[in-house]
Amino acid sequence: MTSSPRTGLFALIVLSAAAAAAGTDAAPLPPESAAAAAALRDRVAAGSRAPEWVREITERAGPRLAGSPGDRAAVAVTLSMLRQLGFANVRAEKVTVPVWVRTAESGEVTAPVSQKLALAALGGSVPTSPGGLEAEVLRITSFDQLEAKKSAARGRIVFYDVPTERTRDGSGYTKSVVYRSEGASRAAKFGAVGVLVRSIGTDTNRLPHTGGVDYAADAPAIPAAAVSIPDADLLAHLASLGGPVRVRFLLACGALPYGESANVVADVPGREKPGEIVLLGAHLDSWDLGRGAIDDGAGCGIVIEAARQIAALPQKPRRTVRVVLYANEENGLAGGRTYAETHKAELAHHVAALEADQGTGRPLGLSWRAGSSAAGFFEQVAALLGPLDAGALTVGGEGGADISCLLPAGVPLVGLAQDASDYFDFHHTANDTFDKIVPKDLDRAAAAAAVVAWCLAETLEPIERVPADRRKLSW
Amino acid sequence: MTSSPRTGLFALIVLSAAAAAAGTDAAPLPPESAAAAAALRDRVAAGSRAPEWVREITERAGPRLAGSPGDRAAVAVTLSMLRQLGFANVRAEKVTVPVWVRTAESGEVTAPVSQKLALAALGGSVPTSPGGLEAEVLRITSFDQLEAKKSAARGRIVFYDVPTERTRDGSGYTKSVVYRSEGASRAAKFGAVGVLVRSIGTDTNRLPHTGGVDYAADAPAIPAAAVSIPDADLLAHLASLGGPVRVRFLLACGALPYGESANVVADVPGREKPGEIVLLGAHLDSWDLGRGAIDDGAGCGIVIEAARQIAALPQKPRRTVRVVLYANEENGLAGGRTYAETHKAELAHHVAALEADQGTGRPLGLSWRAGSSAAGFFEQVAALLGPLDAGALTVGGEGGADISCLLPAGVPLVGLAQDASDYFDFHHTANDTFDKIVPKDLDRAAAAAAVVAWCLAETLEPIERVPADRRKLSW
Repeated sequence: MTSSPRTGLFALIVLSAAAAAAGTDAAPLPPESAAAAAALRDRVAAGSRAPEWVREITERAGPRLAGSPGDRAAVAVTLSMLRQLGFANVRAEKVTVPVWVRTAESGEVTAPVSQKLALAALGGSVPTSPGGLEAEVLRITSFDQLEAKKSAARGRIVFYDVPTERTRDGSGYTKSVVYRSEGASRAAKFGAVGVLVRSIGTDTNRLPHTGGVDYAADAPAIPAAAVSIPDADLLAHLASLGGPVRVRFLLACGALPYGESANVVADVPGREKPGEIVLLGAHLDSWDLGRGAIDDGAGCGIVIEAARQIAALPQKPRRTVRVVLYANEENGLAGGRTYAETHKAELAHHVAALEADQGTGRPLGLSWRAGSSAAGFFEQVAALLGPLDAGALTVGGEGGADISCLLPAGVPLVGLAQDASDYFDFHHTANDTFDKIVPKDLDRAAAAAAVVAWCLAETLEPIERVPADRRKLSW
Repeated sequence: MTSSPRTGLFALIVLSAAAAAAGTDAAPLPPESAAAAAALRDRVAAGSRAPEWVREITERAGPRLAGSPGDRAAVAVTLSMLRQLGFANVRAEKVTVPVWVRTAESGEVTAPVSQKLALAALGGSVPTSPGGLEAEVLRITSFDQLEAKKSAARGRIVFYDVPTERTRDGSGYTKSVVYRSEGASRAAKFGAVGVLVRSIGTDTNRLPHTGGVDYAADAPAIPAAAVSIPDADLLAHLASLGGPVRVRFLLACGALPYGESANVVADVPGREKPGEIVLLGAHLDSWDLGRGAIDDGAGCGIVIEAARQIAALPQKPRRTVRVVLYANEENGLAGGRTYAETHKAELAHHVAALEADQGTGRPLGLSWRAGSSAAGFFEQVAALLGPLDAGALTVGGEGGADISCLLPAGVPLVGLAQDASDYFDFHHTANDTFDKIVPKDLDRAAAAAAVVAWCLAETLEPIERVPADRRKLSW
């Protein structure tokens, strides 16, 4: 999942109720296609190889921040995997990516007590000076409070102490992540010299949650790190004692010259309309602390398995089903942007795109953005997902960060909603490892993705594209 | 809790059923004392200050491995705390302790994939050479298997991959910890050059569990580290692929000259028999990775609060209730040994000792070792603990590692059994921080300890001491 909340699945824009309720089926699904979808659903849900693909990626490539050796390994591993699985047109499409590296980091409370802190630089952070940065801490619990205390921020380390609520739909993250992404620049405008953020997560482990910091153009870029949640609790309690709390931290990290990565693309060619494409996307890169199992090895496993199972059907899909494992979602979205640019001429023939980027949780339903006449189609798909208990429909959203780049071209977007209750326990931490995958739930998510992709590929006519007035990106 | 399984609460030696069933009450508890015990129980269980004492110790001292700056801070913090609370004879009794330090550690799989490992030197480990140690890994799942494969161990890093079962009574730990304590020397005898141990814990976090390694005199001391459980899973899967798995790891750690620490001692003087002592023990030191909240800040909080609440009763206890916060339980038991030696002349007047060293879990009951005529007394105490759901009695054991040193003198020993279901999620890791304390459960544990200490201090005659033939230590 992206470091920016503005492109997430969770930021749904609810369209008119009329669109949701529209029953006109402009894109009928032939009965035999619906029957095949039901069989596909049951077979994949009963046991899939999705966990195997996640294991391959996490074990053979591991951490794979854009431009890193692990990122290059992940491209090689998945190219090889997709070729061995018999996909067509397996290729790496070059993407120029920003490169950021972390080499060392440490921190400690120096007053009123002496305690080491478990912290990690936020992705994209500038480094501290080599000797570290020490200052008094200003604890802040909201941007409103920062405004009210702005005169106290000068020369201080601002500590954003905003808990992330555990929610099934991930909305708790959407609310708190803005302190990670925007907090540094907002504090820097008032003269702060550094920022510590209570990890945007729902666990209680001494494992900080990294993720991108977005520096504004009109503020100094100051060092920014996440502290683990127990360490945030410590800082909060020390601050509550009333006396000055001082912290020293050192971040050795920074941006390197742009590097090279790739979107990994593979096709299941359509039997009738091979030039029309249903895109199944996930992102191949990950943050650097963990092994990227839930974010987004899981999504890669889901879409690879969904396409593989479609390819194994007795009848190939009417349209082409394309897997795209995107580069650099986490640290710049270069993969999504580059795909949209490189394939600009074909986007009119991209009939829809689905992204899986919500971890290993069981599927709950779909969000969709398309022309309103597609409502009937999605109702039909939702009915097919009912036996998976995954038939909830939400109108709106942008499907996922990577595929959102297709919105300006009017490509219908589908987001796979999954149970994210535990997702933010592990997200962007060292704990994002293969053992966190729940095979049964991942199988069901792969089944849901397979059903959606198959149905989109099987309608007699493509579903209605996103109308021109609904193509504006939220980010 | 000690690094050695042989001295733990869990290694219970069940004495004769006859002793357990004996109803002769050689140490009657006056009815008014029993009534006071019930009131004490209810007051402490309803809300105590035990969590506050744990917070002070973990926040103001933090990690406090014997001989470290944190250890010295903990002695100062608790001396000050106990004086402020009005205890009598508050003092630090000097203890000479082994000192071991960790300065850096890292590790990685080098074949068949490249992956960083989350690992930590076991306490007491020798260092690797400054460039680290690299060798092929031999995965071992039991000492029997090591014997069978001993010829394969030469020149290898032996990886003990034995999971720890989650149990309420901590017995899962007792079974697996022997691989941590004895594994290095057993492997070294067969020519292994290093040892990695699957963390002796029940979590799935990338936070290794340290704890002591016991080097045998008749084997080379080889570097020994714990890998986190997800990393153990990775190594296990790589080993299952059949090809060679290689690991490189570096440990910069080692023993320094002996240092100084202290047992912190404080009394609630008895009203009638001040020279007779009921000892309430816990250990003040901790391993170095976490802040020692559950191990054993919790025990310190329990016994301090139990004694404080007894001191606050309208009538002082008949005998002296003494709090002992032991030095160096984790890395050598010097505190327990030194107390027994220093107080040798008074041990005949130590009427009993209880130790709390099982974390923050709710109390379940007591283990006791004393003369068989004490059975009736413990039945009476168990009845008083019934309303806390903490009335289970087990005959045997050694009460706890520190107080076990009093066994040769025949001092009756009591262990406070607590629910340890979650204890080994955090034990000996960076995750052992104050937020893991469950105040409600800690209050109940303090209530149980207060009842036991009060009753031991109130019997008209001391309970029967441990008979000479049951004074042999298991370690």
